[in-house]
Amino acid sequence: MNTYKERMSLVEKEAKALGKEVYDDSKQQKDPTENILRQEKSPKLATLEEAIRKSGLKDGMTISFHHHFRGGDKVVNMVVEKLAEMGFKNLHLAASSLSDVHKPLIEHIKNGVITKISTSGLRGDLAKAISEGLMENPVIFRSHGGRGSAIASGDLHIDVAFLGASSSDALGNACGYSRSENAKSICGSLGYALPDAEYADKVVILTDDLVAYPNTPNSISERNVDFVVEVDSVGDSSKISSGAIRDTKNPRDILLAQQAAKVIINSGYFKEGFSIQTGSGGASLAAVKYIRNKMIEDGIKASFALGGITAHMVKMHEEGLIERLIDVQSFDKVAAESLKCNPMHKEVTSVEYAAADDLGSAVHYLDIVILSALEVDVNFNVNVLVGSDGIIRGAIGGHPDTAANSALSIIVCPLLRGRIPCVVDEVTTLITPGSTVDVIVTEYGIAVNPRRPELAERLKKAGLKIVDINSLKEKANSIIGDADALPFGDKVVGVVMNRDGSVQDVIRNIKA
Amino acid sequence: MNTYKERMSLVEKEAKALGKEVYDDSKQQKDPTENILRQEKSPKLATLEEAIRKSGLKDGMTISFHHHFRGGDKVVNMVVEKLAEMGFKNLHLAASSLSDVHKPLIEHIKNGVITKISTSGLRGDLAKAISEGLMENPVIFRSHGGRGSAIASGDLHIDVAFLGASSSDALGNACGYSRSENAKSICGSLGYALPDAEYADKVVILTDDLVAYPNTPNSISERNVDFVVEVDSVGDSSKISSGAIRDTKNPRDILLAQQAAKVIINSGYFKEGFSIQTGSGGASLAAVKYIRNKMIEDGIKASFALGGITAHMVKMHEEGLIERLIDVQSFDKVAAESLKCNPMHKEVTSVEYAAADDLGSAVHYLDIVILSALEVDVNFNVNVLVGSDGIIRGAIGGHPDTAANSALSIIVCPLLRGRIPCVVDEVTTLITPGSTVDVIVTEYGIAVNPRRPELAERLKKAGLKIVDINSLKEKANSIIGDADALPFGDKVVGVVMNRDGSVQDVIRNIKA
Repeated sequence: MNTYKERMSLVEKEAKALGKEVYDDSKQQKDPTENILRQEKSPKLATLEEAIRKSGLKDGMTISFHHHFRGGDKVVNMVVEKLAEMGFKNLHLAASSLSDVHKPLIEHIKNGVITKISTSGLRGDLAKAISEGLMENPVIFRSHGGRGSAIASGDLHIDVAFLGASSSDALGNACGYSRSENAKSICGSLGYALPDAEYADKVVILTDDLVAYPNTPNSISERNVDFVVEVDSVGDSSKISSGAIRDTKNPRDILLAQQAAKVIINSGYFKEGFSIQTGSGGASLAAVKYIRNKMIEDGIKASFALGGITAHMVKMHEEGLIERLIDVQSFDKVAAESLKCNPMHKEVTSVEYAAADDLGSAVHYLDIVILSALEVDVNFNVNVLVGSDGIIRGAIGGHPDTAANSALSIIVCPLLRGRIPCVVDEVTTLITPGSTVDVIVTEYGIAVNPRRPELAERLKKAGLKIVDINSLKEKANSIIGDADALPFGDKVVGVVMNRDGSVQDVIRNIKA
Repeated sequence: MNTYKERMSLVEKEAKALGKEVYDDSKQQKDPTENILRQEKSPKLATLEEAIRKSGLKDGMTISFHHHFRGGDKVVNMVVEKLAEMGFKNLHLAASSLSDVHKPLIEHIKNGVITKISTSGLRGDLAKAISEGLMENPVIFRSHGGRGSAIASGDLHIDVAFLGASSSDALGNACGYSRSENAKSICGSLGYALPDAEYADKVVILTDDLVAYPNTPNSISERNVDFVVEVDSVGDSSKISSGAIRDTKNPRDILLAQQAAKVIINSGYFKEGFSIQTGSGGASLAAVKYIRNKMIEDGIKASFALGGITAHMVKMHEEGLIERLIDVQSFDKVAAESLKCNPMHKEVTSVEYAAADDLGSAVHYLDIVILSALEVDVNFNVNVLVGSDGIIRGAIGGHPDTAANSALSIIVCPLLRGRIPCVVDEVTTLITPGSTVDVIVTEYGIAVNPRRPELAERLKKAGLKIVDINSLKEKANSIIGDADALPFGDKVVGVVMNRDGSVQDVIRNIKA
């Protein structure tokens, strides 16, 4: 005989051997509700307050945010306001970055709602207040790759992530754009939010466009989402960048751009299949223009452009000059739209972008990066975080990540900005170690790191004006004179982490 | 003053407070190699033997494979052959499924290389040998959703995953198709391999098309890959299915298809935005044809089709009748090509597809599923794994997953296959519990589960021939007569897990 009843003793025996239960049919509960109605009653849908309560958030825990809307972000202020209203205290705010728009955090810091901050950067009044000693605990600054590694390794443990999305279905399949008619916002890549979505204990998606299941192609998977909160607006897309491609008319920027382009073209790395990352500044964009012309002239194509993707890169991709775009952050709406539409325009997490401990992360396959600087020093060290007045006014971003792993890192930097020298004896704060910086381009000449004599040789041969970095510093000095020492206090207001998780520098309070 | 040297004591203090090292600049090592050459010396590239050695695989560990090439798979045999050659013993082979082509495993089981198997199904000589008691340990059978859950929960821990890919770059960005000119194979979705890639301790990608970095859009991320092995061929794509859309000419299949289509159309679920999953069998495909006509006639569009995606579904997607395709397995080359090309054709992991414990997995939003059966019984239980001769000859697949969570599960099954009755008193092996099965369509009438009286009512109203399931069994019985009891032995050769991780049934050895 072979009846189920007869087999029951064997089923029990095998279950015991495997340490499992025996199947219980009485638990089966078929739900005859059709899918559209099921979506309306998705167990993940909640108000912000419900989501916070159900998330189990407690005083002292870590909350996280992404900064893909940059100056247009509405999520950080909205959520922290609600947390304050609900009486939370002592929270650690771990954002991928913070900017001018987050000024309201000053009050929440004063009231004890936020007592710790981790971020890539700070700007505006919040940065000034923190620079002057607002917080008891120093702000922890990490590069984008460093943050990805810290989250993946558990070094930065996130209890609840609050992630803004331009569309999500009721289950949490979410992304930085929307394909629906009700689209309100767009930020493109959610690259900095993806590690949070993957590793946070609880993930709350806030969206201003709740769409039908399945919201696909999607960036964040429902697998990683616990709650979906519909809100009026997650961000003002007009503020993710200056917008359209603009050609700089500043003669100094044009000169810097031409020099940077010449460095690239004559560096030995400008050949079929090369890879490049550039910033969105005027000189950087203008440099891309010259490189583009040379690529067309020489019939050279790039295999990929990396990083913050700009409209300029999208144009070159669509022209067939750049095969693929690898996008951790869309720097403008054109790039965000391209991510939505171009199949070879790829979204990556910050880990896939720039993690030092990920052998296959994109920066490890980056040939050329053009970067900017607030200050560079005679040892090629770069500062992009703290102003020469001692006040925090920038962000680490992917600066040290790309400098360290690219084959050729180029810093484009004027010798002076008004009365402020940009080439100095020693940077105010060490962000990108000089050991990872290859070339500094100024309007007074190009300095090549002595570690790269072959590079200096090639550039000299091409007729470029190669100068000693010390002579640039002296030139600046001769124009401006010695700067007064900055009035730093003794309180540490910021700690700069290297991407490998070590402590690289500290920022002290500046007296107001 | 503000020198780095001066700040050193503060850096040390903060490092100590954070439990971190102080940054060590001497560790910085810039690599001036260009990206194309770096790819050639990627630390992940290895021969199969090197990858196995470096993976740390030891006797007694668990290795895993996917079955996206179905009968055309070449990876399982290639890897197990190499493991045997290298002297490994006592391995647990955890495949998403196994088929006829894996007959060589018989020898490796006899030689003690493989001593445990987990799979969704078994077919051919391997299945027969195992049914007859080849192995000491019973084979663990799981549904696709059940396997996904087991891997994600750690219940099924994979030490080393060996995953075939139709393209990969040297870093491990891999997928089931290739965009290069050297493409050799295509299998489409890698849905069943994705949990392995994510959760296995070590992941080895085998590919027959090593492409330039970045291989994007990709399915498996380099983040999850430890080794990349280039091989001649990972699979014969012509065997992933019968290929083109074919219309059945079998009159019984046409009748079954018509009846199934009528059930769907009159079920109450056939309305704007419905979702559906179907198999690739003749009756199932033909049913889709009738449904398609009715959708056009009534102006109804489906929001998504789920599961094993077929050419037929792709056609309807491209016609605009099905908005999105959610693909855990491409059932034919047309579907695989569509995954590569259609942005709304979405690849999902088996967890996102069918995990019971994932509230947002797609089956939870499935309205209608059409399934087949080897046997159904008077309690609506279904068997798709073990033949009526007691020999394993099928696979659980997503059968119990979709039946349990869909709003309407329809089993299409002839009353008899030759001299074998398909409606019986009790199924030989319990795969899909009757509590999750709503309708059984045979050529002698349609049986509706008494748990769904409202459904029976609607179908009766539409003029369909609703019969008692017992009368179907009696009809089969009256034609064939009583079947002899099968000669089962006392050895348990298979254990059927429910998708919730409990033990649902056992399969005993059948005497040869």
